[in-house]
Amino acid sequence: MKKAVLIPDSFKGTMSSSEICAIMEERIRAFYPTAEICGSPVADGGEGSVDAFLSACGGEKRRLKAHGPWNEEIEAFYGLIDGGKTAVVEMAACAGLPLAEGRLDPSRTTTFGAGELILDAARRGAKKIIVALGGSATNDLGAGAAAAAGVRFFDAQGVEFVPVGGTLSKIARIDSSALAPELKNCRIITMCDIDNPLYGENGTAYVFAPQKGADSAMVKMLDGELRAAASVIKAELKIDVAQVPGAGAAGGMGAGMIAFFGATLQMGIETVLDAVNFDGIIKDADCIFTGEGKIDGQSLRGKVVIGVAGRAKKFNIPVIAVVGDIGDNIEDAYGRGVSAIFSINRVSQSFAENRKRCKSDLKLTMDNLMRFIKTPL
Amino acid sequence: MKKAVLIPDSFKGTMSSSEICAIMEERIRAFYPTAEICGSPVADGGEGSVDAFLSACGGEKRRLKAHGPWNEEIEAFYGLIDGGKTAVVEMAACAGLPLAEGRLDPSRTTTFGAGELILDAARRGAKKIIVALGGSATNDLGAGAAAAAGVRFFDAQGVEFVPVGGTLSKIARIDSSALAPELKNCRIITMCDIDNPLYGENGTAYVFAPQKGADSAMVKMLDGELRAAASVIKAELKIDVAQVPGAGAAGGMGAGMIAFFGATLQMGIETVLDAVNFDGIIKDADCIFTGEGKIDGQSLRGKVVIGVAGRAKKFNIPVIAVVGDIGDNIEDAYGRGVSAIFSINRVSQSFAENRKRCKSDLKLTMDNLMRFIKTPL
Repeated sequence: MKKAVLIPDSFKGTMSSSEICAIMEERIRAFYPTAEICGSPVADGGEGSVDAFLSACGGEKRRLKAHGPWNEEIEAFYGLIDGGKTAVVEMAACAGLPLAEGRLDPSRTTTFGAGELILDAARRGAKKIIVALGGSATNDLGAGAAAAAGVRFFDAQGVEFVPVGGTLSKIARIDSSALAPELKNCRIITMCDIDNPLYGENGTAYVFAPQKGADSAMVKMLDGELRAAASVIKAELKIDVAQVPGAGAAGGMGAGMIAFFGATLQMGIETVLDAVNFDGIIKDADCIFTGEGKIDGQSLRGKVVIGVAGRAKKFNIPVIAVVGDIGDNIEDAYGRGVSAIFSINRVSQSFAENRKRCKSDLKLTMDNLMRFIKTPL
Repeated sequence: MKKAVLIPDSFKGTMSSSEICAIMEERIRAFYPTAEICGSPVADGGEGSVDAFLSACGGEKRRLKAHGPWNEEIEAFYGLIDGGKTAVVEMAACAGLPLAEGRLDPSRTTTFGAGELILDAARRGAKKIIVALGGSATNDLGAGAAAAAGVRFFDAQGVEFVPVGGTLSKIARIDSSALAPELKNCRIITMCDIDNPLYGENGTAYVFAPQKGADSAMVKMLDGELRAAASVIKAELKIDVAQVPGAGAAGGMGAGMIAFFGATLQMGIETVLDAVNFDGIIKDADCIFTGEGKIDGQSLRGKVVIGVAGRAKKFNIPVIAVVGDIGDNIEDAYGRGVSAIFSINRVSQSFAENRKRCKSDLKLTMDNLMRFIKTPL
């Protein structure tokens, strides 16, 4: 093995993608000291996405003042890669759950700051802006972000306002032509790793608002607000965002990015693979190591392992998936480019127990895979 | 891979060695249809040991009448391999726990029938007799078996009797020269897979008698009986059996086999490997697949995986261990001939849950190992 590429998703709740890359690299290095090893931590849209991109692609982190979920001034940041031509904005940098800790209320918090970051990136010359959606404290459909970027929202009395989760139904008119001109020349790609629609029982309010502090009455109210706003968007902007998979990402910001920013929505892994020039990196690789917390029938659509395998298959590069749990119905994975799948579980015990030892278990699994590769069979 | 050798231990409480061999063979065959595959189920000394030897070595099963744990007449059996030159007697065939079910009492049950089987094998010309110890309902130090084979036990009044667990301390004199002459020309190898001494807190009574029906008072009594008998054996036969590892196997029959039959005690795996001509079989093999329910620091002494690896190392044949749990401190295994170790665990959940799916999990693991071998890296 002369060249290995590492591109694992995080194991949710146990190890970040960067931590997994580091362990994989260390164990491969122990057996192949001179191998070229390219590690690309995978951003999943949530907190840490900018760092993951910077670590995978190189680049710089721009720090700036912006507004937080309660409209307070905070220190925020985004990433510039590709010589500044591409920016990576993580909405959680201004509207993430940790920023609202102790004061969770998705009916009142705003994504305004995220829009400021997007606008700043465009003003500094970024031609492509990747907006990572995930980990939000908000449910404002991204209307706050849109307002920060110039879009104007009016109520039935013609009064302009910045909608939040609890006031979306007050929107009567939207002027999206007021979007800052710098953004009109930008390609905006929104990445998310969920495919929930905007509203309804699988919508963002019902599925995600409880963890943002909503009780069941508020969930119902928020869902109604989103529903009302979607119907105004349809009437005003001629865009039907309600059922787009991913529209519900980050409290409906998925839908807002499409409707207000003209952005495209992409599963996170494809965005990442493009950004790191994955096809170029793997061309001369002997093997790709990827993984995720759990592979199952569900994760065969759009998640990291299958996304990676799809690219690798075109070049006939082997893909080894090292995962937490192996669920059922994963046989399709083999036909879609995954060479073999190994679980790091080494003891029959609960996840609560196993998560404490996940790092040493990953290490042992990589170790045995290296030993196995080196065994002449 | 042109030739693979399969020699897994049973996964205690989940799959027998034969079942594991069958699954391993099926999955290897799916990827290497023309490979030569030699499967050797491993006898562990307990119930099923004769079948395991017959399945591994070929041979015939001799059925005969003998006496059960309560001295009742039963249908028993033993195995003849190696053209009848070697017999395999499993003591459980006459004194096993299932035979005493509903009437457990290790103070009164006897190994007499096991001695009858040994004697029958010798009379039919077996020159080597493998006696598999394990799964016993008895605690008689093998005195019953010895009596059946001619050894005479006398009490303080000079009255001959056949000692049982509760009467061992009554032994005052032992005439081992009365052992049947046919047995004197036999090599008797006793196999066990535990290393408990005869008595004391790690002795057979304290560790195993409870599962044979002894309450704590009886355990204490049985331990005292064994202790008394050991001291008579030492005085009469000039043999100190008390602390020999394995002396406590099958209710002290390990000690009795040494003292009364002149047998040697061997860890089961070495006996099995000799019996199946393991060194001969593996010489031209590309790979050996072995395994056990749990590999850990403990199983690095004398258990199946390490026993197999020790032989394979001499010929430089790769050994892949496919196991249930991987415990701690297993690093030494690599230096002792194990090439790589893989757990079949694929879901973080309790053993009670995982055991239900162990067959499909083993299958999946073998599958991925085969896919991995076939991946050009």
